[in-house]
Amino acid sequence: MTRIEPRTLKGFQDLLPEHALRRADMVRRIEDVFRAHGYAPIDTPSLEYAEILKGKGGEETDKQLFEFDDAGGRRVALRFDLTVPLARFVAQHHAELALPFRRYHVGHVWRGERPQKGRFREFLQCDADLVGATGVAADAEVLVTMLSAYEALGVGGVTLRVNDRRVLQGLLGRLDAADRAVPVLRALDKRAKQGDEVVAKELAAAGLKGPAVETLLDLARPRGDDVATVAALEIAVKGNPVGEAALHELVAVKGLVLAAGKRPGSIVFDPGIARGLDYYTGIVLEAELDAFPGIGSVGSGGRYDDLAGLYTAAKLPGVGCSIGLDRLLAALAEKGEAAAPRAGPDAMVAHAGDAALARAFGFAQGLRDGGLRAEVFPEERKHAAQMKYADRRGIRFVFTPDPGGSFHGKDLVTGETFDVDAAAAALAEMRARWTRSGPA
Amino acid sequence: MTRIEPRTLKGFQDLLPEHALRRADMVRRIEDVFRAHGYAPIDTPSLEYAEILKGKGGEETDKQLFEFDDAGGRRVALRFDLTVPLARFVAQHHAELALPFRRYHVGHVWRGERPQKGRFREFLQCDADLVGATGVAADAEVLVTMLSAYEALGVGGVTLRVNDRRVLQGLLGRLDAADRAVPVLRALDKRAKQGDEVVAKELAAAGLKGPAVETLLDLARPRGDDVATVAALEIAVKGNPVGEAALHELVAVKGLVLAAGKRPGSIVFDPGIARGLDYYTGIVLEAELDAFPGIGSVGSGGRYDDLAGLYTAAKLPGVGCSIGLDRLLAALAEKGEAAAPRAGPDAMVAHAGDAALARAFGFAQGLRDGGLRAEVFPEERKHAAQMKYADRRGIRFVFTPDPGGSFHGKDLVTGETFDVDAAAAALAEMRARWTRSGPA
Repeated sequence: MTRIEPRTLKGFQDLLPEHALRRADMVRRIEDVFRAHGYAPIDTPSLEYAEILKGKGGEETDKQLFEFDDAGGRRVALRFDLTVPLARFVAQHHAELALPFRRYHVGHVWRGERPQKGRFREFLQCDADLVGATGVAADAEVLVTMLSAYEALGVGGVTLRVNDRRVLQGLLGRLDAADRAVPVLRALDKRAKQGDEVVAKELAAAGLKGPAVETLLDLARPRGDDVATVAALEIAVKGNPVGEAALHELVAVKGLVLAAGKRPGSIVFDPGIARGLDYYTGIVLEAELDAFPGIGSVGSGGRYDDLAGLYTAAKLPGVGCSIGLDRLLAALAEKGEAAAPRAGPDAMVAHAGDAALARAFGFAQGLRDGGLRAEVFPEERKHAAQMKYADRRGIRFVFTPDPGGSFHGKDLVTGETFDVDAAAAALAEMRARWTRSGPA
Repeated sequence: MTRIEPRTLKGFQDLLPEHALRRADMVRRIEDVFRAHGYAPIDTPSLEYAEILKGKGGEETDKQLFEFDDAGGRRVALRFDLTVPLARFVAQHHAELALPFRRYHVGHVWRGERPQKGRFREFLQCDADLVGATGVAADAEVLVTMLSAYEALGVGGVTLRVNDRRVLQGLLGRLDAADRAVPVLRALDKRAKQGDEVVAKELAAAGLKGPAVETLLDLARPRGDDVATVAALEIAVKGNPVGEAALHELVAVKGLVLAAGKRPGSIVFDPGIARGLDYYTGIVLEAELDAFPGIGSVGSGGRYDDLAGLYTAAKLPGVGCSIGLDRLLAALAEKGEAAAPRAGPDAMVAHAGDAALARAFGFAQGLRDGGLRAEVFPEERKHAAQMKYADRRGIRFVFTPDPGGSFHGKDLVTGETFDVDAAAAALAEMRARWTRSGPA
């Protein structure tokens, strides 16, 4: 027989139980935070008509699409984010929705990027968006929600680096380059990764004249603190009413986020944040873990007031945030912190021969009915092999059916043994031992 | 501007908040049950090399694959189930896993089926599998887990219709058709949907002689009760040691499931259950909702001892179950029971002008810190429009900042109003009102 080599595609990953459990736990925490802020879930298909997705993110995401003809000859593609499908969704269903519409969506997205550390071709995004409202309250609520989600993950401090596309437009206006926004912002977006020299060349290629390149690179840089950054930008966008208003809104948004109790350092104005996607029209942001600045952005977001307008005449401006869990897990993995401490259940009932199986099944169910996690070892094996398995899975308590009808318990943490007549007694014994030593 | 029509592909669905919330709640309940039985999550890519997936389920799933060449020229396909990727996963990682290996996986799968009521081209599966063990304890634990999951969903009684491929092989042996198993079982699998006449024709096409067709259709039918079914099968497979052993194992599995406290009617022997997938080698089963027999199978499972052997020389027999949530939700939707009762938060803070926003943000955060769900209305609108929105979302409490510094509360259930000075007082008032009337 010819065997097929078991392997995954380049840029795609298997998650083993400890990592999958950690991620599943993170997803629940994020969902609970999203729900606490008024967001409800939706689902949209992974596959869309290609025309729905193309030309929305920009040249780069178009190139990265997994696009093909389905068996019915339709041109289809896997979604590259959750925002474009949301815009399609609200355009299609807005009459059935209560507006302003808050939705969250946890789902995979696909991008044929060059695989590299922390970057995958399939990755999980957790998005919260608010559609049908403009203004500082909407922007600020999304930022508060995002910061609360990171707090719930317990991954240490997170800084949102915040900017506004309209402020950038104001800077470009000052440099007589307002019409070059798309290539200029794309170039600027690469600054953190590729450095000033590369970006300067791209800016020149985008049509910026020599001194304008230097001026832009200088203006698009945070100063010592937000007060200094705002002061510098105020001078730079002076006389540009849209840029001035956007700058004042940014300050107001930060005020509201602080009013919700977030720490002052959790938002920093960074006029260099451009975001690579074409659909942003207002506030833009990237999230960085304070403990892992090197990993780059672990979340992003922004306002996109014209996106749904590609599908409908209804006015459906939107703002949202996206938490990239796989990048975050890759960062934690580097520190050895990505795995859940224990994927195994609380207790195992050993397999002591077929005749004892019915008792083992009843006992295990009794433990579950008492709120614990329990499994029966599923095959007849040597007792030592069963104990070794329990140890490897981090199971603390093993119960073996005795011929007399009771169960022989072993605490693998202390090595102590004890006898119990039924599940109720076992539950009491296990709880007493956890109280003494803390849960495993 | 040319607008793109907002639409989804045939057979693909959007889930609106009330339905997505119900499904998300169901997923959590199922995951908790899987965890309680010792299963931990894994994740595998949605896309695999096509050769990993093809020829594993059978002709039909091969035809239904979403298969294409990626940008790197690799032949790839979207998974059609979670079992074949699991077999690939354990073949690839078994050295890193504690065996026997219990994993659960909640994920989408894709099949280019003809769309029809309750059948989608992308649907969510919740699978629990036990790999690396054979025998009745492993089979029974999977059945117990599956029944517990349905109990947790609160969808009424569920019946597992259970059979064993080896019993069917015994029947075919008796009919001198042991070598025709693949086409015969595929034909038999269509019986519930297409009726005896169609199946009889397919059986004849598969090489079964006239009287053998009648005999098989008679034998592959449950009798009045399990005792009668087993008695009939015992006669039919007499002299076929594999079939006899399999029949005795089925009886033992049922005994263990009852020992775990499941009701006797939750398992019924049905020798007509064949399952359409080629990879099954032992027990096979389908789950039916007692309240919706017409919708057909809402879950399935079985033993596949040779599947991982397609990728590795290691012995990795498996058994598992799969709960199809989208079919279940479609059934509930027909009864008007598919939606969550309320997707909105507990409270809304009205937008009373920009000057009051900071107070509104602090107040909303205070409610969240107290464990409630709260949102700030994100735009300045007429108060009546904000109240209408709250009502539409099923939000019970609306708080409006007063010029004096306190908040004016309204209970939309009773119509009563009250004043509170801060979030703590609001929490107390809301809890008192819930205690009186029950939570919304």
